[in-house]
Amino acid sequence: MGATGYAGAELARILYRHPRVRVTSVASIEGVGQRLGDYFPHLRPFDLTIKEELDEVEVIFAGLPHAVAAKLLLPYIERGLPVIDLSADFRLKDPAEYESWYKTEHPRPELLKEAVYGLPELHREEIAGCRLVANPGCYPTSAILALAPAVKAGLIERNVVVDSKSGTSGAGRSPGLTTMLAEAGEGISAYALAGHRHMPEIVQELSLVAGAPCRVTFVPHLLPMVRGILTTAYASLSQESTAEKDVKEAYREFYKDEPFVRVVDAPPQTKHVRGSNFCTVYPTVDPRTGRLIVVSCLDNLVKGAAGQAIQNMNLMLGFPETTGLEELSLYP
Amino acid sequence: MGATGYAGAELARILYRHPRVRVTSVASIEGVGQRLGDYFPHLRPFDLTIKEELDEVEVIFAGLPHAVAAKLLLPYIERGLPVIDLSADFRLKDPAEYESWYKTEHPRPELLKEAVYGLPELHREEIAGCRLVANPGCYPTSAILALAPAVKAGLIERNVVVDSKSGTSGAGRSPGLTTMLAEAGEGISAYALAGHRHMPEIVQELSLVAGAPCRVTFVPHLLPMVRGILTTAYASLSQESTAEKDVKEAYREFYKDEPFVRVVDAPPQTKHVRGSNFCTVYPTVDPRTGRLIVVSCLDNLVKGAAGQAIQNMNLMLGFPETTGLEELSLYP
Amino acid sequence: MGATGYAGAELARILYRHPRVRVTSVASIEGVGQRLGDYFPHLRPFDLTIKEELDEVEVIFAGLPHAVAAKLLLPYIERGLPVIDLSADFRLKDPAEYESWYKTEHPRPELLKEAVYGLPELHREEIAGCRLVANPGCYPTSAILALAPAVKAGLIERNVVVDSKSGTSGAGRSPGLTTMLAEAGEGISAYALAGHRHMPEIVQELSLVAGAPCRVTFVPHLLPMVRGILTTAYASLSQESTAEKDVKEAYREFYKDEPFVRVVDAPPQTKHVRGSNFCTVYPTVDPRTGRLIVVSCLDNLVKGAAGQAIQNMNLMLGFPETTGLEELSLYP
Amino acid sequence: MGATGYAGAELARILYRHPRVRVTSVASIEGVGQRLGDYFPHLRPFDLTIKEELDEVEVIFAGLPHAVAAKLLLPYIERGLPVIDLSADFRLKDPAEYESWYKTEHPRPELLKEAVYGLPELHREEIAGCRLVANPGCYPTSAILALAPAVKAGLIERNVVVDSKSGTSGAGRSPGLTTMLAEAGEGISAYALAGHRHMPEIVQELSLVAGAPCRVTFVPHLLPMVRGILTTAYASLSQESTAEKDVKEAYREFYKDEPFVRVVDAPPQTKHVRGSNFCTVYPTVDPRTGRLIVVSCLDNLVKGAAGQAIQNMNLMLGFPETTGLEELSLYP
Repeated sequence: MGATGYAGAELARILYRHPRVRVTSVASIEGVGQRLGDYFPHLRPFDLTIKEELDEVEVIFAGLPHAVAAKLLLPYIERGLPVIDLSADFRLKDPAEYESWYKTEHPRPELLKEAVYGLPELHREEIAGCRLVANPGCYPTSAILALAPAVKAGLIERNVVVDSKSGTSGAGRSPGLTTMLAEAGEGISAYALAGHRHMPEIVQELSLVAGAPCRVTFVPHLLPMVRGILTTAYASLSQESTAEKDVKEAYREFYKDEPFVRVVDAPPQTKHVRGSNFCTVYPTVDPRTGRLIVVSCLDNLVKGAAGQAIQNMNLMLGFPETTGLEELSLYP
Repeated sequence: MGATGYAGAELARILYRHPRVRVTSVASIEGVGQRLGDYFPHLRPFDLTIKEELDEVEVIFAGLPHAVAAKLLLPYIERGLPVIDLSADFRLKDPAEYESWYKTEHPRPELLKEAVYGLPELHREEIAGCRLVANPGCYPTSAILALAPAVKAGLIERNVVVDSKSGTSGAGRSPGLTTMLAEAGEGISAYALAGHRHMPEIVQELSLVAGAPCRVTFVPHLLPMVRGILTTAYASLSQESTAEKDVKEAYREFYKDEPFVRVVDAPPQTKHVRGSNFCTVYPTVDPRTGRLIVVSCLDNLVKGAAGQAIQNMNLMLGFPETTGLEELSLYP
Repeated sequence: MGATGYAGAELARILYRHPRVRVTSVASIEGVGQRLGDYFPHLRPFDLTIKEELDEVEVIFAGLPHAVAAKLLLPYIERGLPVIDLSADFRLKDPAEYESWYKTEHPRPELLKEAVYGLPELHREEIAGCRLVANPGCYPTSAILALAPAVKAGLIERNVVVDSKSGTSGAGRSPGLTTMLAEAGEGISAYALAGHRHMPEIVQELSLVAGAPCRVTFVPHLLPMVRGILTTAYASLSQESTAEKDVKEAYREFYKDEPFVRVVDAPPQTKHVRGSNFCTVYPTVDPRTGRLIVVSCLDNLVKGAAGQAIQNMNLMLGFPETTGLEELSLYP
Repeated sequence: MGATGYAGAELARILYRHPRVRVTSVASIEGVGQRLGDYFPHLRPFDLTIKEELDEVEVIFAGLPHAVAAKLLLPYIERGLPVIDLSADFRLKDPAEYESWYKTEHPRPELLKEAVYGLPELHREEIAGCRLVANPGCYPTSAILALAPAVKAGLIERNVVVDSKSGTSGAGRSPGLTTMLAEAGEGISAYALAGHRHMPEIVQELSLVAGAPCRVTFVPHLLPMVRGILTTAYASLSQESTAEKDVKEAYREFYKDEPFVRVVDAPPQTKHVRGSNFCTVYPTVDPRTGRLIVVSCLDNLVKGAAGQAIQNMNLMLGFPETTGLEELSLYP
């Protein structure tokens, strides 16, 4: 559902090569009646027509606007179909938080408890056993993966800075002034300084990891590029003398069995993960100021959306977690 | 001197329209014997040939590599010619700091006392009376202008984070792998996490403003664009309850007579200052975390290099400070 | 009028430094009631509010949609005010052509005779004596300047190919899918292959120069950049043995007194003219195929729109033609 | 061989998922002793060290500079190993042509007869039976696929214009001024107007298809993007009255069994084929001028290099032609 957005198109692209899945039905408000391969020329091999409603399916991915998602998904959730929701509707556990950030009453708060926040690195087991996954936002994925190991190990104070930089595809496919090439090209801007909707997700998950409330200053930036998020996170070390090698060791340990997170030895760039489901994480210590600095990179449409959704599906359906996600990055 | 780099070309471009200055001589190691307008087609109106050494001139701009600058400029400085040095050679007051960051002995440490750090917003009067200006680095200009008012007013703790994002022209005109379009295009990377040479400049000047030592975590990022720096600075408020309006008021007061710094009411973008000598500064408070966030934007080749150098020359020679710098930004 | 489009903003930017003109009134449908400097931050020095209608003025620039322009301009034209119209309404001499390409009846065909096609290189004297200038399209300016000398000298057959490549700012400031960064970035597309509205302009003017009908295959392309048009024109030489030096000589002769057209000796690039009113033209001969190839470059918002409009105004009002247009290009 | 160039990296990326091939050895002059995944972070899953010479292998891809390729490949060719050479050394059948364009004597002209020009759409059967494939250049692939059907059907005069636009990755990975982001970004340039080395390839193959000499005006352009070639080809129709539908029919017929060429109904863009081995071809007729216009798009590193090389390998080794090349394009 919501097949005509960027996340929808990316789901189709990746699932095309998934050996255990066949895309049998695509629905959207836009493009109804068009062939998927006419709407998106790169999806030409799909012999599918965009419909208003889904046909019979066995698992659902939904790339819908918030509030719309919860409403349209309810009947399927009630019938017990496995659902991966890429909207924000089931990410925040506290309906009051949802309402304060999304300016609308939550359509079905009783489902919030059942829904699992779909970050496998934190919630793998719950995902495997659930029917409703709230697929994380792109920024939160990069921020949480950057900071979780340090928070978990108590290496840092629980008031952090997350400075994120994103390509414009993160803003979706609906035309708007700020994401036109003539406006966003050859320039950079900061936005949402009064508070971005992805901030409470980061707070919720880091607090969960910490077992105590975390505070997060989050500033997103719009870059003159299409795909990719680089997050630079800053936090005061709990003990100013903490050695970089101990930090790196904590990160390696935390992610040692993770198929899609790589703790790297050199500052990463987004291009090295473009088109793939990998997230690279580079932790380092600034001994002059007593800070931890962590740089993380991912593709906002893959690990930040469609790829992670498929990773979640693999877990829900009992497939090997990396199935269909083995593609290497498109570099350069 | 150093006419064939980007800063040199930019100096020529701006000075072309300066009513009190005529460019009469250009020198460089590269391009000797070529007409300036053949080397740089956009400078075709200049009827000048690139020479190995300068002819007789009345003021010198030097866009040379560090260490080289100090050596080549010495004879001119000794003869008392006004010199604006765009290299790093005279920026750091402490020769030991210089040697530790630039890995070379300082060629003429006795001149460091005489040299003035050419940021007019902090050192206007000294610049007006001096013969040797150390033109600030592009990152430091954006960082210091972002933080000086808060530091001066004691609004923040003196351990700050400076997250800067720059176009690739800041890396100069010598070809290198990391700034090729195929490498730097469609991606972003962080670099110099172990310490960037511009950091001690920021520390020096903020400490001077504070009257006490400041600590700075500085992380630069390479963006897929040509010109522009956006700096996002983060600092803990001294008093967590400080109101945003008081912060904004302090900034407006600090910059109230500045011709080239604009305290703005909306998050700025680099494109709004591209090609001009303006620096826009947007201070805001994150009440959830007790932090000051400041976003500043400038064109790294203008306010971050050539434009600021001309502003300094205007001060040194007693011209109105804005002479030749009235051009508006090239948007979009 | 139409101050909130890219051409309108560019007119303001350039006129800001024009010594003989003051912008006293700006009108638009959008942004009414806003200060111009809030709508466009780079125009902050203008102390003007956007109004629905113009105040009393002495000359009018109109950057309006076609059909709208002719209607809104009529009263001013009738009062005898000098008008430079940047729309297509008065470019085509034949109202039937206009109607066939713009799918609307011409609102005032009787004015078509009076209007002068504002390409100074072809119509300088008529422009100087007229009250209504039809400012040429951006593509036609690049195409006509590329081919006029060869057509005039009879060097080529009168059936030519014009392959043009443009930045996305040429498509205007209204958001649309094809000019979003995520769609237009990192890719190139050809469009309007069944016929682009700028084609009849090129045909009209080249035919006028030739004194005989010319035929033009015109294919525009959308590039992942903001500003600039590069046109590559191809034509069969009338005599296959024509020497390159004779062609170059014809071009140099044709443009020898032109302040804004440069016949250059190396293939030009758009960046060398960005932000300036220059058009560079590089003619060459392919002896293997008996063809003339001409590459021309201009900034679509300057020589292709606002700059050329000011050049026309200078001619209309008797100012030196280059007044206010002396700025060099912003490179890199 | 030549694993550290862009074509080499792309071969590794694609072969990683080829079910019939394992990359067992990588050689290069650069990076000897480094792990491939350190040299190219996106290739981290390969457990291979870059060596000076290849280990024992069963098939060789060579992405080496011209002249070097022929010399280094000779021993392998003599031993009868299947070789796909991505350099230009075996593309031109006439050693005199080679010498005139590449300014060096051909190191082994006797092999030119044996070598097969590796464009499967023209030479599928010969490729299947040969031991040495000369993998076509990126520009020629786009130009020949755009024009072959029209040439074959005699629809056009045999003197054509090929206007190609390429991303900068086509220039390779060695740093140079013209492909730096600060130079190539936000601008476009034409180059090699006096003759590009890819031109004789296009002439050779189109002449072969025509059975008579073809003449080609070829002008390449450098775009501000990383990957992708869009070629716009122009040719006079043999009969000016030829209908577009007949042209389209000829193209569909010509490519009806081709797995990687798509004749499309709307003007294509490079982004729709990025990262995939597809070439899209859009033929159209300009009835006003009696011309055929064909737009073709491909990814210069895939169908223009590594993907086509693997397609050739599949043919040589008797694998299904599309094996390992099923990946869809990375859009947006």
